[in-house]
Amino acid sequence: MENKDNLKIILDDSLNLSLNQIRDLLSKMTSSEIAHALESSPPRQRDLLFSLLKTEEEGDVLFELGEEIQQDLISNISNEELSEAVKELELDEIVDILQNLPEERMKNILSNMSMVDRKRIEMGLTFPENTAGGLLNTDVISVRPSNSIKEVISYLRDLGKLPDNTDKIFVVNDQNEYLGELSISEIITSNPSMQVREIMKTEISPIYADLDDKEVATLFERNDLISSSVINEYGKLIGRITIDDVVDVIREDADQNLLGMAGVAEDTFAPPGRAAKSRVFWLSMNLVTAFIAASTINIFQDVIDKIVYLAILMPIVASMGGVAATQTLTIVLRGLTLEQINSSNIRWLFKRELAVSILNGIVLSILVGLITYLWFQDLTIALLIACALVINLISSVIAGILVPLILRKFKQDPAIGGSVVVTTVTDVVGFFSFLGLATIYLV
Amino acid sequence: MENKDNLKIILDDSLNLSLNQIRDLLSKMTSSEIAHALESSPPRQRDLLFSLLKTEEEGDVLFELGEEIQQDLISNISNEELSEAVKELELDEIVDILQNLPEERMKNILSNMSMVDRKRIEMGLTFPENTAGGLLNTDVISVRPSNSIKEVISYLRDLGKLPDNTDKIFVVNDQNEYLGELSISEIITSNPSMQVREIMKTEISPIYADLDDKEVATLFERNDLISSSVINEYGKLIGRITIDDVVDVIREDADQNLLGMAGVAEDTFAPPGRAAKSRVFWLSMNLVTAFIAASTINIFQDVIDKIVYLAILMPIVASMGGVAATQTLTIVLRGLTLEQINSSNIRWLFKRELAVSILNGIVLSILVGLITYLWFQDLTIALLIACALVINLISSVIAGILVPLILRKFKQDPAIGGSVVVTTVTDVVGFFSFLGLATIYLV
Repeated sequence: MENKDNLKIILDDSLNLSLNQIRDLLSKMTSSEIAHALESSPPRQRDLLFSLLKTEEEGDVLFELGEEIQQDLISNISNEELSEAVKELELDEIVDILQNLPEERMKNILSNMSMVDRKRIEMGLTFPENTAGGLLNTDVISVRPSNSIKEVISYLRDLGKLPDNTDKIFVVNDQNEYLGELSISEIITSNPSMQVREIMKTEISPIYADLDDKEVATLFERNDLISSSVINEYGKLIGRITIDDVVDVIREDADQNLLGMAGVAEDTFAPPGRAAKSRVFWLSMNLVTAFIAASTINIFQDVIDKIVYLAILMPIVASMGGVAATQTLTIVLRGLTLEQINSSNIRWLFKRELAVSILNGIVLSILVGLITYLWFQDLTIALLIACALVINLISSVIAGILVPLILRKFKQDPAIGGSVVVTTVTDVVGFFSFLGLATIYLV
Repeated sequence: MENKDNLKIILDDSLNLSLNQIRDLLSKMTSSEIAHALESSPPRQRDLLFSLLKTEEEGDVLFELGEEIQQDLISNISNEELSEAVKELELDEIVDILQNLPEERMKNILSNMSMVDRKRIEMGLTFPENTAGGLLNTDVISVRPSNSIKEVISYLRDLGKLPDNTDKIFVVNDQNEYLGELSISEIITSNPSMQVREIMKTEISPIYADLDDKEVATLFERNDLISSSVINEYGKLIGRITIDDVVDVIREDADQNLLGMAGVAEDTFAPPGRAAKSRVFWLSMNLVTAFIAASTINIFQDVIDKIVYLAILMPIVASMGGVAATQTLTIVLRGLTLEQINSSNIRWLFKRELAVSILNGIVLSILVGLITYLWFQDLTIALLIACALVINLISSVIAGILVPLILRKFKQDPAIGGSVVVTTVTDVVGFFSFLGLATIYLV
């Protein structure tokens, strides 16, 4: 774990080190450790660390970084340096870095490359970012069904070094159409005189280049894959996807789910201006919805004027509904993300959530009623707040289930800002039910 | 994608199918697809689907399931059936299933096994669930440094089939102490007359069995590993960990982060009683905190009694603070989960968050003040609510940063229930600052 210590030293003590000492530490770290150090550093220190990297290390490190930090750092280096830095990267890595550049700059970088590289990268750039094509590498090894295992082994030996994460090679016909796959461990354990067609596997379907990257992750997980072939719409083998890139997709997806619910979208050490900008949208939305909730209270100002206790108790009903709605919303969002929810089980889920809200509603409304009675010695108010709470918990289920489903229907990400919308519903219903009941029974 | 269609049919149409049709569909699906179908089904349908599985498929499916559903289904089958079902599983899979069983039952299952299997499983059970040891498999292939590559190849060929995810084999001395590793692709491309010691890699440190499983995931990601050796405290090779199990750790971790923030802990289709139980704790905590917030308002009942507008406007200040605090909390939780936050950058982060809250505070307080003025035509109230909002946004930063750090200090999971605690702070501060200012300037 020697490397881990280097990372720790960089993170904890870099202020006390000379530039040469830092440079020395960086040279002993892997590119993903360096990327982690950059992502864990405030902007100024991050720029310093990056400037101390050798150009040939910059490419690998840039690829490992999140999009925002990656593009920040790229904007500080020259086209020549960037061309040099990405030269040795794999196709999917170069594409990942180039696809976010301004048009002009991308063209400039491409024009510095060899014809072969340029064609390959331009092919890679044609795939949308969040598809299998965006994860594609062209470092595939392919053989023919008529080859013998002996020929395959000698071909591999001639290659010298296999690309990283090569657990299998692919079998194609002379039109380069995908036929099947052959695992390296099968090659090594099979009789050398056998033919490829005798031992190749054909059960696992190749992945189409336009498949959504989250579905690629699901396929990898379902079938415990290390790598998979990728074909185009004509069935031709155009590359492969490896597990390391799929793990990145899974991490990013989880990260976005977590951040999206709170309405933030920024790296941990984003500068204040950018962080403020990323958050102000949902804060403003919440401002609008908070005024909607306030208007609800406004309707009832006469009753509050008469009974000031109502103003003290009304936030309790609203707040309980908000927590319950967020719980339902979270369960629905998780179910949608894991593709567990569909038309056949949504009714069951809805009934279950209703049952949960009634069960918890009974327990909590007894508690709320009791505490309220003990506090204000007023049985009517205690009964009213208990009823309002049950009503609001039921409304929280309806909001928690419907809001994400409706957002998804309109092709919006249901995870983003859903909680601001559902808590508005529970605020409004909470104030309305409590103050409304009070108007009926107390005035 | 034939299999995907089977999964879809099972999920969407299983009510219209005969038992034999369902059994037929299940037999064409992989164990992880079946697990997904079970996790996407309400309890009764889930029990039905599981009962239609062949005993020999049950083991693989049980392993793929989340702990809660796994243990539910196990509680419905006999010890004999369970012993039969797990017989063919890998060590880490058996351990995963057995470690959650009641003591009595586990002993019964173990006593049905062969001496060799029992010893192996008992070794596996000695490791805590969330450590490298809990992910351990004993299906390692090891060779000696003095072996030639030719000998290694012929040894592998004799084995016939390599274990899944075997991208490398391990090199040990005659005390079984770990020396290095040898990738399969290196074996196949190297000169057969070379010795293992000449081409083995020694840079990558083996993983200790007691390492936390999240750190195992970090190591796999940082070094793009497919598999890694695991050693005990004496440096002896005791097994290996493979990427498929690490991906499960990453998924579960992300799932728990998402659910924890909302205070839920249950599978998507948990029965109502269990779902209600999993949520009632944080709802009750929120009840307590909501009454704390209400007591704050109670202090100011005289001023509310005089100026009813205050009751209408006070939830706005509280609600804005709640959203801002959740945003800060989310950023801090993510930073802690990704191990980006440490003592050297927390001060920067704190200052950045303060700057963000002041920036957004200025923008939002102008908006709030303006809307309030237009609504109530009262400049003093407009100024007061604007000031209270800035105060509350600043308090939201303090709560959003300190609460998770304090929870972690006391070895609590900062993701769980953190949002209930921080919104309590912002509710109390929100009500206190707004009503307090109003008491000073309006009464």
